[in-house]
Amino acid sequence: MSRLRASVSLIRAVVACVVVLAVVPLAADEGMWLFNAPPVRTLQERYGFTAKPQWLAHLQKSAIRMNVGGSASFVSADGLLLTNHHVGLDCIEKFSTAEHDYAKAGYLARTRAEEKKCADLEMNVLMSIEDVTPRVAGAVTPSMSAADADKARRAAMNTIEKESFDKTGLRSDVVTLFQGAEYQLYRYKKYTDVRLVFAPEASISFFGGDPDNFEYPRYDLDICFFRAYENDKPARVDHFLWMDPAGVKDGDLILIAGHPGGTDRMNSIADVRFLGDELFPFFLDFARRREVLLRAFSERNEENARRAHDELFFSENSRKAWIGYIDAAQDPAVMKKKAESEAALRRKVESDPELKQKYGDAWQTIERADAVFRSIFRQHALLESGVAFDRVLFRKARTLVRLAEENSKSNSERLREYRDSNRESVEQQLYSEAPVYDDLQTVELASGLSHLVEVLGLDDPLVLQVLAGRSPSARAYELVHGTNLKDVAFRKQLAAGGKAAIETSDDPMIRLARIVDPKSRELRTAYEQRVEEPLRQAYAKIARASFATSTGETYPDATFTLRLGFGTVKGFEEAGRSLPWRTTIGGAFTHAAEHSNQPPFDLPRSWLDAKPRLNLDTPMNFLSTVDTIGGNSGSPIVSRQGDFVGIFFDTNLEALGWDFVYDDRQGRAIAVDVRAILEALQQIYKADNILSELKQK
Amino acid sequence: MSRLRASVSLIRAVVACVVVLAVVPLAADEGMWLFNAPPVRTLQERYGFTAKPQWLAHLQKSAIRMNVGGSASFVSADGLLLTNHHVGLDCIEKFSTAEHDYAKAGYLARTRAEEKKCADLEMNVLMSIEDVTPRVAGAVTPSMSAADADKARRAAMNTIEKESFDKTGLRSDVVTLFQGAEYQLYRYKKYTDVRLVFAPEASISFFGGDPDNFEYPRYDLDICFFRAYENDKPARVDHFLWMDPAGVKDGDLILIAGHPGGTDRMNSIADVRFLGDELFPFFLDFARRREVLLRAFSERNEENARRAHDELFFSENSRKAWIGYIDAAQDPAVMKKKAESEAALRRKVESDPELKQKYGDAWQTIERADAVFRSIFRQHALLESGVAFDRVLFRKARTLVRLAEENSKSNSERLREYRDSNRESVEQQLYSEAPVYDDLQTVELASGLSHLVEVLGLDDPLVLQVLAGRSPSARAYELVHGTNLKDVAFRKQLAAGGKAAIETSDDPMIRLARIVDPKSRELRTAYEQRVEEPLRQAYAKIARASFATSTGETYPDATFTLRLGFGTVKGFEEAGRSLPWRTTIGGAFTHAAEHSNQPPFDLPRSWLDAKPRLNLDTPMNFLSTVDTIGGNSGSPIVSRQGDFVGIFFDTNLEALGWDFVYDDRQGRAIAVDVRAILEALQQIYKADNILSELKQK
Repeated sequence: MSRLRASVSLIRAVVACVVVLAVVPLAADEGMWLFNAPPVRTLQERYGFTAKPQWLAHLQKSAIRMNVGGSASFVSADGLLLTNHHVGLDCIEKFSTAEHDYAKAGYLARTRAEEKKCADLEMNVLMSIEDVTPRVAGAVTPSMSAADADKARRAAMNTIEKESFDKTGLRSDVVTLFQGAEYQLYRYKKYTDVRLVFAPEASISFFGGDPDNFEYPRYDLDICFFRAYENDKPARVDHFLWMDPAGVKDGDLILIAGHPGGTDRMNSIADVRFLGDELFPFFLDFARRREVLLRAFSERNEENARRAHDELFFSENSRKAWIGYIDAAQDPAVMKKKAESEAALRRKVESDPELKQKYGDAWQTIERADAVFRSIFRQHALLESGVAFDRVLFRKARTLVRLAEENSKSNSERLREYRDSNRESVEQQLYSEAPVYDDLQTVELASGLSHLVEVLGLDDPLVLQVLAGRSPSARAYELVHGTNLKDVAFRKQLAAGGKAAIETSDDPMIRLARIVDPKSRELRTAYEQRVEEPLRQAYAKIARASFATSTGETYPDATFTLRLGFGTVKGFEEAGRSLPWRTTIGGAFTHAAEHSNQPPFDLPRSWLDAKPRLNLDTPMNFLSTVDTIGGNSGSPIVSRQGDFVGIFFDTNLEALGWDFVYDDRQGRAIAVDVRAILEALQQIYKADNILSELKQK
Repeated sequence: MSRLRASVSLIRAVVACVVVLAVVPLAADEGMWLFNAPPVRTLQERYGFTAKPQWLAHLQKSAIRMNVGGSASFVSADGLLLTNHHVGLDCIEKFSTAEHDYAKAGYLARTRAEEKKCADLEMNVLMSIEDVTPRVAGAVTPSMSAADADKARRAAMNTIEKESFDKTGLRSDVVTLFQGAEYQLYRYKKYTDVRLVFAPEASISFFGGDPDNFEYPRYDLDICFFRAYENDKPARVDHFLWMDPAGVKDGDLILIAGHPGGTDRMNSIADVRFLGDELFPFFLDFARRREVLLRAFSERNEENARRAHDELFFSENSRKAWIGYIDAAQDPAVMKKKAESEAALRRKVESDPELKQKYGDAWQTIERADAVFRSIFRQHALLESGVAFDRVLFRKARTLVRLAEENSKSNSERLREYRDSNRESVEQQLYSEAPVYDDLQTVELASGLSHLVEVLGLDDPLVLQVLAGRSPSARAYELVHGTNLKDVAFRKQLAAGGKAAIETSDDPMIRLARIVDPKSRELRTAYEQRVEEPLRQAYAKIARASFATSTGETYPDATFTLRLGFGTVKGFEEAGRSLPWRTTIGGAFTHAAEHSNQPPFDLPRSWLDAKPRLNLDTPMNFLSTVDTIGGNSGSPIVSRQGDFVGIFFDTNLEALGWDFVYDDRQGRAIAVDVRAILEALQQIYKADNILSELKQK
């Protein structure tokens, strides 16, 4: 599964060292292309396909970003949309209860009245792109210190966004591309009323569970349908994708539109080594901690398992992904390839006096910035990125504490996430009615506090304040059971009281957030001014050097913004075995039988009952070479005609190395075939209401 | 579960910084007492119990050390013995197959012919103790460098053991007590032909699984019976314990004889902080890695789960134990208590010129040694203690490589484990016929290699040699599938060929062991000479200072040698809840029903069927205050009369802090009640053959 999620997003923000070195020719189907710089020539030359502007615009406006960390697309004029089950899971679990576990049992709304509203899901549709590079880059002058440059750039971005928001009412984000070589203003239509229409049972959405995750063959119906609402009515949308029941065949050209979360393809070698040797292992360790913790919690009883389900899935998924990234970073052959391409560019720069003078110091700057990062990243991750405190309650406490503080500053001076144009999104999360479970919060916070003590040591002044004389487990219990932040009204009241209310609050979680905030901000400032800003400037130089020394179309590393990919429907060879381009519905039954239908290889009752009615030859999942990474989960895969033929939901293990280098010898993307979706809706779920809506073109 | 296992043993060897500061009065039932220095006065004063020499000798010679990492006791004159199921598991799994999973299904030999032989289990019974302090301590003079002292001491120990072995034919180990203040020669009768007589099903032995592990209430029948054989006949033993069907009652004095693996009670504060902040978290991380890896491997199918069962249990068990130890080390209150007791002793030493001159520098020496250890422990753990390579095949390769090298030295100069007196034990492991699973070995080795790269970095010369241009996963596959070491005959042939055969072997695993050995030995030498020896000398000083400033009976920290403990049958209070001293067989049925009899809360068919016949009021597990730690698993608990009344198998979470400080407010040991054993054998398993043997006094 390849969902990008909030905390991965944070991690990626930390890792954001992103640029294309186009000196090496791009591999066959490589690329996560910008919609305003699509690979028109490549598509024409390689596939004889003409990507017309209106074709692109239609796909762009049918594509959706799910801010929980995934992608989706509209499939009807009435705002019906399709994403992965593992992307929708966060929402589904928030309205599930011990009595009604919709994640496990599935759900089908037979009427619009039965559609179930998500507690806090935000979706974005990209409406326009505007280049603002001159204005953002122009705010910074070469003579500025990194600290001043960081402030000036942030002010410019916050201001551009506010102006755009005030003018258009659209969510407006300045996106950093080529790590600072380009800045573009993305305007999104935002949906905050999203309702579940249909989800299949967990066992078929994630059939094969963790063992089959990132593997092939696969047989997953990893889908769910939601509907966007506006003013309490189904949203009318101009652009949506029609599901083509003809589907794909081996060798077809297909295209993908979605939101890949982050890649590290073009980082300098020194940077990649830092990631592979230190930063990724730290986050892998964190994923393992959470997996072990949540698994132990889940095993106690069924209700615990339900409460931790989504987080446990996410931890397992992250663990497998980090292992894949690290295996690539630890592969001497991969690193050699990267080293050679870097050496080639550096030779070109060195041999040209003008390039040398303008860009020659970039690699050293990166090494210096990484040295700073190396010394602070663990503390930064624990305190600022939320590794020690990434629990619902602490996050809310921190938001309240920071909201009060940031409100007292002008918009241009604020921390990025508290800018005016982002206020609604912050409040949607802060005042979410999603349930909070004391028992789960307590074990998670205890583990986080223990991790903090491990890294900072028991004598650290901040640790002493945080623990307040208790062991991590005792302190976590006291904090979670003592806070009133579970109550939405209390949160609203605190926010309304402003700085005075926060400063005098004796709520223990608010007090904890106050204790942590100075050190946390200090680390953030150090990161932004001494790591991020120098890296941004250095990578912008490398990007410009690369542009200057190469021709040909190019794309920036992924940034959880809309991208276009393309590729071929195609199987692969592994250990002498030929893996065909698609599996079938019949194959799912065989796979279950081989495992005695035992979890996680158990098909739901509905499938077992429907077997006689099903066309077992229906393609279930299919492979392609489209270039993708986590965050793209739920992205539509379309034909040359622009019709929906499948939904991306995973890659194989071999494709995890794509974080660093695209390689289509064995790496493949995996999608649910449109035909399996239609067959299941018709024969298994009898979802006639959805089917008739999908038929309208 | 509190089993000590080989790798924990290694860890403990690394941590061995062990001494009693008897300046603080011992807590009520504290102590893991030496059989040649039993707490005679304390038992008399506190319980009016006279521990007579023959009473002690009988218990000593009935007690067994299971070298896989646990304890046991003889229960019949024909060598029948009882231990925990989780201690016997290693043996049971080695003769299980995909078709016959005796660990899961249980086993009962109805005749002696049906008793199933363990592949490589060694058991020891302590026959005598001789003080050799003058000879070992005398080998070292104050003017010697630490390196010379280490060598001289090792030579003395190896020589004493060889002399004793040659003279008596008994396994002879010089045991370091009070971390070097005392040395004693322990002579053991050794059994290497051990056969399984009875094991219940896995689900009742470990009823409640990981969620209930280290928790209470409990309902586990964590037992199995083996029989010792000599010359292919049941061993006749003079000392065994009679199972008293009357059992215990609330408030009774009970005693325990077993082999606690290691404690860190009396380490200096600086040392404890190093353990809690760095060393324990490293091993907790390792336990989590293995747990996640083995769990993912196990979920693929039932046969994988069977293959990884014992290791997965052990990883989960370690993880819970390390978390408990670390929570204690991170508890400011616990650390304050320890700091105060250290300060009290240091004040006494400082205020007495003679003590100050003799012992005053000990604490600084410890800090210096720890500084060295801090800088090498990760590498040492990975390369020498087996964290990166702790796989069956690599271990065999290393043993072969080292055997060839060490054989060329005189006995007194060899690495400790290759001394003549230990040769049989080494060969039993090396030539074990236990099965080796390529798939499991590969994923484990891949994970270990990746861990190595993480710690040493991809540019490290040793890493470059170890990976040989492959990624960790590809290299692991190549090594495991390329080696012939799975074949016992090949191992014997290589060993017979001596150094020449090893040096010219092109077996990839042998070559790997050769590549790793120089660095690994270098780290071992650094550890022994720059960490272990200075710590030994410093702790010996602290122990002597402590002896000099206090009166009263005392005991050394645990060392996986035979100890006597005592305590009271007693419940405890937790979060306002009163937990009674025992559970019942009926409670097991209730506990299962509350969890819909779903794993790991599922009772086996045999129990469900037998329910109508069972006395549901029979005590199942009981609590006591006896002082214990991992390694004591399987230890007999006896009454004043010296009769068997239960078998220790676990503690609650609160007792994990006993690694550092004994505290009987909430900490409790948990035992299987003798009455549950007899009731189950009779009513459920119809094991009349065992029951009639147990009746003979």
